[in-house]
Amino acid sequence: MSSAATRPHDPDQPWSVDEHLEDILSTVRPLEPIELQLLDAQGCVLVDDVLVPVSLPPFDNSSMDGYAVRVADIAGAGEEFPAVLDVVGDAAAGAADPARVGPGQAVRIMTGAPLPPGAETVVPVEWTDGGLGEGPVSGMRARSLAPEGAQGQVRVHRSAEARAHVRDKGSDVRAGERALEAGTILGPPQIALLAAIGRGTVRVRPRPRVVVVSTGSELVQPGEALAHGQIYDSNSFALTAAARDAGAIAYRVGAVADDAETLRSTIEDQLVRADLMVTTGGVSVGAYDVVKEALAHVGDEDEAGAGIDFRKLAMQPGKPQGFGSIGPDHTPLLALPGNPVSSYVSFELFVRPAIRALMGLPDVHRPRARAVVKAERTLRSPKGRRQFLRGAYADGEVIPVGGAGSHLVAALAHADALIIVPEDVETVESGTELEVVLLG
Amino acid sequence: MSSAATRPHDPDQPWSVDEHLEDILSTVRPLEPIELQLLDAQGCVLVDDVLVPVSLPPFDNSSMDGYAVRVADIAGAGEEFPAVLDVVGDAAAGAADPARVGPGQAVRIMTGAPLPPGAETVVPVEWTDGGLGEGPVSGMRARSLAPEGAQGQVRVHRSAEARAHVRDKGSDVRAGERALEAGTILGPPQIALLAAIGRGTVRVRPRPRVVVVSTGSELVQPGEALAHGQIYDSNSFALTAAARDAGAIAYRVGAVADDAETLRSTIEDQLVRADLMVTTGGVSVGAYDVVKEALAHVGDEDEAGAGIDFRKLAMQPGKPQGFGSIGPDHTPLLALPGNPVSSYVSFELFVRPAIRALMGLPDVHRPRARAVVKAERTLRSPKGRRQFLRGAYADGEVIPVGGAGSHLVAALAHADALIIVPEDVETVESGTELEVVLLG
Repeated sequence: MSSAATRPHDPDQPWSVDEHLEDILSTVRPLEPIELQLLDAQGCVLVDDVLVPVSLPPFDNSSMDGYAVRVADIAGAGEEFPAVLDVVGDAAAGAADPARVGPGQAVRIMTGAPLPPGAETVVPVEWTDGGLGEGPVSGMRARSLAPEGAQGQVRVHRSAEARAHVRDKGSDVRAGERALEAGTILGPPQIALLAAIGRGTVRVRPRPRVVVVSTGSELVQPGEALAHGQIYDSNSFALTAAARDAGAIAYRVGAVADDAETLRSTIEDQLVRADLMVTTGGVSVGAYDVVKEALAHVGDEDEAGAGIDFRKLAMQPGKPQGFGSIGPDHTPLLALPGNPVSSYVSFELFVRPAIRALMGLPDVHRPRARAVVKAERTLRSPKGRRQFLRGAYADGEVIPVGGAGSHLVAALAHADALIIVPEDVETVESGTELEVVLLG
Repeated sequence: MSSAATRPHDPDQPWSVDEHLEDILSTVRPLEPIELQLLDAQGCVLVDDVLVPVSLPPFDNSSMDGYAVRVADIAGAGEEFPAVLDVVGDAAAGAADPARVGPGQAVRIMTGAPLPPGAETVVPVEWTDGGLGEGPVSGMRARSLAPEGAQGQVRVHRSAEARAHVRDKGSDVRAGERALEAGTILGPPQIALLAAIGRGTVRVRPRPRVVVVSTGSELVQPGEALAHGQIYDSNSFALTAAARDAGAIAYRVGAVADDAETLRSTIEDQLVRADLMVTTGGVSVGAYDVVKEALAHVGDEDEAGAGIDFRKLAMQPGKPQGFGSIGPDHTPLLALPGNPVSSYVSFELFVRPAIRALMGLPDVHRPRARAVVKAERTLRSPKGRRQFLRGAYADGEVIPVGGAGSHLVAALAHADALIIVPEDVETVESGTELEVVLLG
């Protein structure tokens, strides 16, 4: 880790959004891979190429319920002059060693059962009398109704070419082929393939464990009563949910009061289960900014340039930010501002990419789009700061929601995009095209 | 539940994809709502409108770290002739009863702290000398460095209008307003808003519990050795992962052998934890089709028309399907075909919408798009059946992946779309535009 060292900067000069993000992404490394049970690896990134150990299907098998026969025996068969064959056995899926099919013979066969020796093709049961000696049937009789199994004669009403309704061994994948490439994200179809080729476990990068701590003596747990001057803690809930949404295993730590010693010991306690620490509040210029007070001088003594660096960003909302590493394992820590909207926007811009970098995902960013701003009045943005307005996006247009005030958590709940107003833009007229981050 | 009764149909006549889906969606009802802790409700659907019990912010408060003052006292102040005010106290966020600001006085105030009585506006600390008697400062001294608190005098270098840097009570949301509408899906920003207005719990429809049972005597658990005629069970893994992906809490039951009594008792055992049962395999016309054998005559005796109905669908893959309800609670059950690709496609088309209907989601379907097919050769589709080909979609074009064979699980892992070939189309030339389901 070498946070503050990556950019020699004038402490009075703000960092750009891109510089701060680059500092984070050049510091945070993908987690070490572990071997997980298949269903525990869902959503994770594969570390190695996976090769096919055994061809799929592993043997020639029937794709229909029907009869395995020789081609010559049913040549020219029709409904008026069916081929009549002796049924010499039953081939169920999973049953070993079906009977051999000799000339004039048939084996009743189920979907997925191995093609019996001697058989050249399969006729579906619907092309036969099902061994009942009457007309064409629509299916076999269930074993419970006819437990004596397959015997007697079957009449086949249609001919078939060689290997009709036969799935050839290796026609899906062949042993030695690459099933999945390193870097693949394991969704349900990839898990299907891994199971199909017999992989019970797989080596992936695990989901990062993210600990979320909110700070502020004014914070009260939702559901409890508010005294004057108090507000409800929403950040720890919002960011825990957002961290999960990004793919993490997230732990919410209740709000910590503005006391440096308490905060330091809480963070120390939590480090054992954290691949990433996120705090909110206490990073600005106030006398009670406890995160700054507690962490600004906490060294990460083993490595040069480490520790938590507090900085001002040329953005709105989200100007004060902290980033660095902490503790014996140099656990990355992002210290976000305390205002609910500032912290949420900061999470989207900085914490989400960090989580996805820890997961080893190839693309850590939300999708973006160009959109025409539809606003009732001119929007204002501070010179020299990149502004992120909340917006509702649809079909190439975006409507600002709730204004620029950074406390509008109600508006945030009705937004699905962040409108990016560049640093050099101070006014945005309706009809202007801007870039938006799609929060989808 | 009244599955088979919804459509008087000729048993030899196949059901269309839309008829089968309509039968499912007209039968499956949203789960009964329950009160959940906020973070347990993530991804769930809100049942009632949520009103704001207390205005946000609940009191006038400072949006900056600075000094709360009277407007007249700082009128005309500049760097050369600062206004000099007596600091009469400290207003920290969360601290009750800040001192009153009288004429010529100031209270040092932190972001989020209530505006003290008598104060009319807030000047940021950067516009002052921070009480140090020197030039402008960039922030306050941390309490640990200056534990004596706020006292002495402060020099203010700029004037401010009334209520500058003050967040008005109720400026975010007002008590009595509707915070969130019934039917809203609770993502992180909605959870932020609920926490901010003090809701510790919320009434939502819970995630459905889905039990996945695969059947087939040929199935072996991945990681174990294959004997001749055996294959690995992939369906129970794929569909458990897919059910989770759709929003369910999914339980995987290992593969059950083709024995009707074992299957019946397994399903009976599992019903206690199932809001929806999904089986794979054993639904076709073979003699060992155990799901059909075990469930075709299992009544759901309390209601007319209930039970499991097995039917042929005019689709490829996925022709044989079962649907109905089972057990004392009339738990819906979907019986999918056993081929891995057939079962996966069937899951996407029928089970996923059922899960999302149980969740009460407003839109149960995957997004669709029109796409131009880019194929190396003409695609063939059976007359009278709606075909679902696997494809890779990008920018309005879709490339078929792996052909029409329903056992190509390897191809499935590289597809991100289903190409829909309508019932009346038998050949598709490259360049044709078709509808695709985007598997996201």
